[in-house]
Amino acid sequence: MKFRDIGEFGFIDSIKAQYDIPAKSLIKGIGDDCAVLRYQSGRVLLFTADMLVQDIHFVIGKIPFYQLGRKAAAVNLSDIAAMGGRPLVLFISLAVPAETEVEEIQELYRGMWEICEPHGLTIGGGDTVASPDKLVINISVIGDARENEVLYRSGASLGDTIYLTGYVGDSRAGLKILTNEITPPEEVGTYFIKAHNEPVPLVEAGMSIAASGIASAMIDLSDGLLSDLGHICEESRVGALLFAEKIPLSSELKRLAGVVGFNPLDFALSGGEDYQLLFTVPAEHEQGIEELFKEHDLTAPYPIGEIVQGQGIRMVKADGSAAELQHKGFNHFNRN
Amino acid sequence: MKFRDIGEFGFIDSIKAQYDIPAKSLIKGIGDDCAVLRYQSGRVLLFTADMLVQDIHFVIGKIPFYQLGRKAAAVNLSDIAAMGGRPLVLFISLAVPAETEVEEIQELYRGMWEICEPHGLTIGGGDTVASPDKLVINISVIGDARENEVLYRSGASLGDTIYLTGYVGDSRAGLKILTNEITPPEEVGTYFIKAHNEPVPLVEAGMSIAASGIASAMIDLSDGLLSDLGHICEESRVGALLFAEKIPLSSELKRLAGVVGFNPLDFALSGGEDYQLLFTVPAEHEQGIEELFKEHDLTAPYPIGEIVQGQGIRMVKADGSAAELQHKGFNHFNRN
Repeated sequence: MKFRDIGEFGFIDSIKAQYDIPAKSLIKGIGDDCAVLRYQSGRVLLFTADMLVQDIHFVIGKIPFYQLGRKAAAVNLSDIAAMGGRPLVLFISLAVPAETEVEEIQELYRGMWEICEPHGLTIGGGDTVASPDKLVINISVIGDARENEVLYRSGASLGDTIYLTGYVGDSRAGLKILTNEITPPEEVGTYFIKAHNEPVPLVEAGMSIAASGIASAMIDLSDGLLSDLGHICEESRVGALLFAEKIPLSSELKRLAGVVGFNPLDFALSGGEDYQLLFTVPAEHEQGIEELFKEHDLTAPYPIGEIVQGQGIRMVKADGSAAELQHKGFNHFNRN
Repeated sequence: MKFRDIGEFGFIDSIKAQYDIPAKSLIKGIGDDCAVLRYQSGRVLLFTADMLVQDIHFVIGKIPFYQLGRKAAAVNLSDIAAMGGRPLVLFISLAVPAETEVEEIQELYRGMWEICEPHGLTIGGGDTVASPDKLVINISVIGDARENEVLYRSGASLGDTIYLTGYVGDSRAGLKILTNEITPPEEVGTYFIKAHNEPVPLVEAGMSIAASGIASAMIDLSDGLLSDLGHICEESRVGALLFAEKIPLSSELKRLAGVVGFNPLDFALSGGEDYQLLFTVPAEHEQGIEELFKEHDLTAPYPIGEIVQGQGIRMVKADGSAAELQHKGFNHFNRN
């Protein structure tokens, strides 16, 4: 069997079955936003890694090296945020074609640093090697958290309200503009491209949600709302009900959809790379979560649905009709 | 300026100057075998990463996936060993071409696991992504150690004796056999190929040396004896004197050199990928280190030289003549 047929998630499942061995120090191994290691009484270390490959995850010339560095760092910080942790150190492994301009990789570092510095992260080293043709970037981040505050994908319970921290779908619109599949009205193009190229890791929000002690599960939206909510449902062995009208869409996206002619909800559900946090909260704590967001000067959280019995995700539309939704993520191994 | 001209070490120097920012929790960042993080009173975390790229570091067909997995894991454990630490968790990021057979990557995991299991390591996760053409493997290992036992490259002092844990040069001979540059007598070919393809991380030796408290600096031999001793000299701001006759060569290497016609010392000095530990010990503790090795059933340590004033590495030959040696490592970015 080839990777094309099995894809990332199929392969991870096969490996998880064999090598997800319980260990004294490893609380959570394969299969969440971060691995979780016990390291001293009451505290845990978080570890996350993301690999970005030229011509799969980015195209040189389509994104400046500075933005690429920012984004590569941001998506890792977002994984730490998704567990409710504080990022501490970033490590970078690079495979660089010999003909690459050194200044370009220095620009990559400058972008990473701009994401790291405000959060007090340091760059702890890594590895720099030659590549025959493509640039490959692997970023790892170590963070820490209180053990009893960490939010896993597996914690959602029946009746919990599902929240989002902000708009979804803008990043997909940005990607479609960059690939010339959509031609936007001139004044909104940069808004969407920025949403795609400069995601903001919601570290403070993640830490606040975790520290509140009232959320039950959390994930960041990298693969797309349906795919990532699907991870929560699978790991928590529950289903989810979404309310179409409650899904937060930017006025820019609604306007673009009207002009160009697409359903903005499709972008919101399957778009990916929004890096909002999706979290679940028992219904009795709804007020608490609203107050928390006010207290920390965060945008109001958007309740978009609830955790229900069964499996899979159903969506209730404005007219009251409900439909089962597929939550398959994008398979980079098979683009057809 | 291009990467071809500046190379790995030149680039790391430029980055180190800019981003090796002191931080409360980061004791050592860029520029040792591992990064060292303070995490609880008296203990530190070690972090290391190695990236391997198809057609730069390995050629599919020349090394079975099982051995590739073993080696990729081993070289990371060797970095933890070089600090005197205990490896705890291994993380793997893979960029895999879609046409790769899933069984091949499972073989890679089997090889990694065979290195991890005896040392009590677990596989903690990572990232699996698509690659347009080449297989790229990034392995990270987190280990831990007592803060006051960690051995850095920077600890060597004037008069220290320089030790090796075992033979050097065999791995280079194995590489030359694999690339058909050397045709060995039939009965020794597998010995050298195994030395190259199945390096053994000296975790127990590293921990014993560190725990003894009598060594002053340590590094593992990945780039080659001269290059890696050069790192110790630079970081410790000292020079080194090597005794040509004391450098441990296997009888197999001496024999091969005689048959094929090369200087085995050249392989030993510049070969790379031996993954022996090189460490320094104040002269008054020579006896202690001999006893330590006996106690832990390790091969006797080989004293090969001493730390001297100045910079660079000089070698005294059997006839008493001395020569300055270049300690430039292999620049993968410029093979000419």
